[in-house]
Amino acid sequence: MPDYRYAARTRRMENPIIRQLLRLGHREGVISLAGGIPAAETFPVAEIAEASRRALERWGSRALQYSPTEGLAPLREYIARRRGVRPEQVIVTSGSQQGLDLVGRVFLDEGDEVLVESPTYMGALQAWNPYDPRYLEVATDADGLVPEDLPEVSPKLTYVLPNFQNPTGSMLPAERRELVAAWARKHDTLLVEDDPYGHLYFDEEPPASLQKLCPDRVVYLGTFSKIVAPGLRLGYAIGPDEIINRLAQAKQAADLHSQAFGQAILSELAEMGIIERQEELTRQLYRRRAELLLGYLEQHLPRQVSWSPPKGGMFVWLTLPEGIDTLKLFESAIERGVAYVPGPVFSATGGLASSLRLTFVSVPEEQMEEGVVRLAAVLKEALEGLD
Amino acid sequence: MPDYRYAARTRRMENPIIRQLLRLGHREGVISLAGGIPAAETFPVAEIAEASRRALERWGSRALQYSPTEGLAPLREYIARRRGVRPEQVIVTSGSQQGLDLVGRVFLDEGDEVLVESPTYMGALQAWNPYDPRYLEVATDADGLVPEDLPEVSPKLTYVLPNFQNPTGSMLPAERRELVAAWARKHDTLLVEDDPYGHLYFDEEPPASLQKLCPDRVVYLGTFSKIVAPGLRLGYAIGPDEIINRLAQAKQAADLHSQAFGQAILSELAEMGIIERQEELTRQLYRRRAELLLGYLEQHLPRQVSWSPPKGGMFVWLTLPEGIDTLKLFESAIERGVAYVPGPVFSATGGLASSLRLTFVSVPEEQMEEGVVRLAAVLKEALEGLD
Repeated sequence: MPDYRYAARTRRMENPIIRQLLRLGHREGVISLAGGIPAAETFPVAEIAEASRRALERWGSRALQYSPTEGLAPLREYIARRRGVRPEQVIVTSGSQQGLDLVGRVFLDEGDEVLVESPTYMGALQAWNPYDPRYLEVATDADGLVPEDLPEVSPKLTYVLPNFQNPTGSMLPAERRELVAAWARKHDTLLVEDDPYGHLYFDEEPPASLQKLCPDRVVYLGTFSKIVAPGLRLGYAIGPDEIINRLAQAKQAADLHSQAFGQAILSELAEMGIIERQEELTRQLYRRRAELLLGYLEQHLPRQVSWSPPKGGMFVWLTLPEGIDTLKLFESAIERGVAYVPGPVFSATGGLASSLRLTFVSVPEEQMEEGVVRLAAVLKEALEGLD
Repeated sequence: MPDYRYAARTRRMENPIIRQLLRLGHREGVISLAGGIPAAETFPVAEIAEASRRALERWGSRALQYSPTEGLAPLREYIARRRGVRPEQVIVTSGSQQGLDLVGRVFLDEGDEVLVESPTYMGALQAWNPYDPRYLEVATDADGLVPEDLPEVSPKLTYVLPNFQNPTGSMLPAERRELVAAWARKHDTLLVEDDPYGHLYFDEEPPASLQKLCPDRVVYLGTFSKIVAPGLRLGYAIGPDEIINRLAQAKQAADLHSQAFGQAILSELAEMGIIERQEELTRQLYRRRAELLLGYLEQHLPRQVSWSPPKGGMFVWLTLPEGIDTLKLFESAIERGVAYVPGPVFSATGGLASSLRLTFVSVPEEQMEEGVVRLAAVLKEALEGLD
């Protein structure tokens, strides 16, 4: 076997922790509260079958040919209408993961500063690590990013998840959004507003997006993965025309365009009114499951564990007393038959050892309580070890 | 509008020539011999409708959920069976353009040497330019890459299109493949074997792939775009397990995985025997169109223009006397109502001014002769200008 000569960036792509976690988490008999995927029972299988038929009937071979890098016109128009922008401001991406990657490609030179929340979504770090940026962190609390903690620097990118953040579930209130927007203008930074969960509110719709507040300073990332189906791998980025053109150039080199058939299917689903219906159905299901999980946490977890009830999305973030290491604890949790995601996975700088993320979305309801009971046992034992 | 602070690589993504060409080429009344896309009338629309139905029936929501980065098992197995490798050696990509990008990501540091054929496929240059390599060129003739011209250096990547090359249509004979493989071993280079057209032979199937000859030194790129439909955006890379693992890491950061629904559809099409049938149908159609175009070229082009009849694929490469500049000539061609692709587009170093590429695949048969007549007029005028 030759010694293959990889690029330097390839080493930065390695993530042994996550790979290890994924392997362990799939062990038989383990109740996984670790998932980051939507509940498959929400996927509109029959409607997608119907939309596929309609798409091929209406579009014929055009749904199967090479298509514009920016996306199929009716889908761009639908997205633009929903988000209150012009279609030229929209580019369809292969999931919002590709949106993150394209933003990294187009903006990040080695050593550039990227400001992220602490904690933040690990997929963004994975997308940007190959471009070798320098991460700065801003604190969050139960209401998301803490504006007073925004630094007096000018990061190239500032990454914010205002709606039902992954992993904390927090929602950034309107006043904080104004402060973030003002700070971005003053410090000449580009906001990357990642919004996979905005439609998944339990009671109130989230306030106006950062994009609405400062449209020329925001790349907004959206996705159909959490509302229709991740397997279609379709999301979108919205931004100023100039930036969308740059993202399109980068996308042309990366994969020419996103799959056309799926775009035609989504256009049909939109016309059939299925997408809005999905949003409503998914909200209802997730609200019920969140209530269930929160009830069990209340009932079973030791009182030293704290969390803020999420107002939407897919996750709850647990905070334990300092000294608990959720990464070290993970193996004994697996042995007891429960999986979660340890806090350090969501840290750009390696902290957050005493936190962990749970989902209420993809765990079967009848297993949820047992999962929490097992988790409680693990945590109790660890807390006793602290004394 | 703020001055957006792009990465240095973003400038290297610009390709004003190609963008300009694309714009001009779509003008009304222009007969385009410039296309690089398959004939849409070959796409199995009804069969894809049926396969979509079957995929959702069999897989249900699993065809719509997040799925493994490496690809769905039955599709990987099908590809492995067809190519005579193990499924672990296969990763499904978002078209073979993504295969090129992932190879660049995983292997190319700034300034690394990449050896390409002259001429070569422009999409590979587009994929790799952001990684800022240094291109070296190896000459080609009517039988493809000229082994005697292979340099005494050790490029990180060596990019070869052995079957019905884009743009020349040439096919690399078995003896030359042996020489290329021996050279790669001796010079410790990784061969990137790009094979979108291998199934599109007119008479004889191509000889054994470079991958067969030196499996541990080759990343082989294949695609379903030319046989089933490009709109599904599904291709694959095959290589040593270690390299496939690295490509999977890079792909996870880039788009998590390729669309699952399309992979399930392809698996159904494979089981229904449609893919092999498509290969046969497409071969027959393209052979007929190649014969047609070659006949018209023979009949109408000035005798100073030369070409080698392709044995498969989608393209013919015309060579004109030195002094003709096909890039400069392009605008007057468009004015006369015919489009081709100028030679320099296929050069890593800016040469090839007196060559051009024609396709026989996507031009309507009833327009083909008129297209050639218009092209002949443009070339005659240019040749007269030379005297």
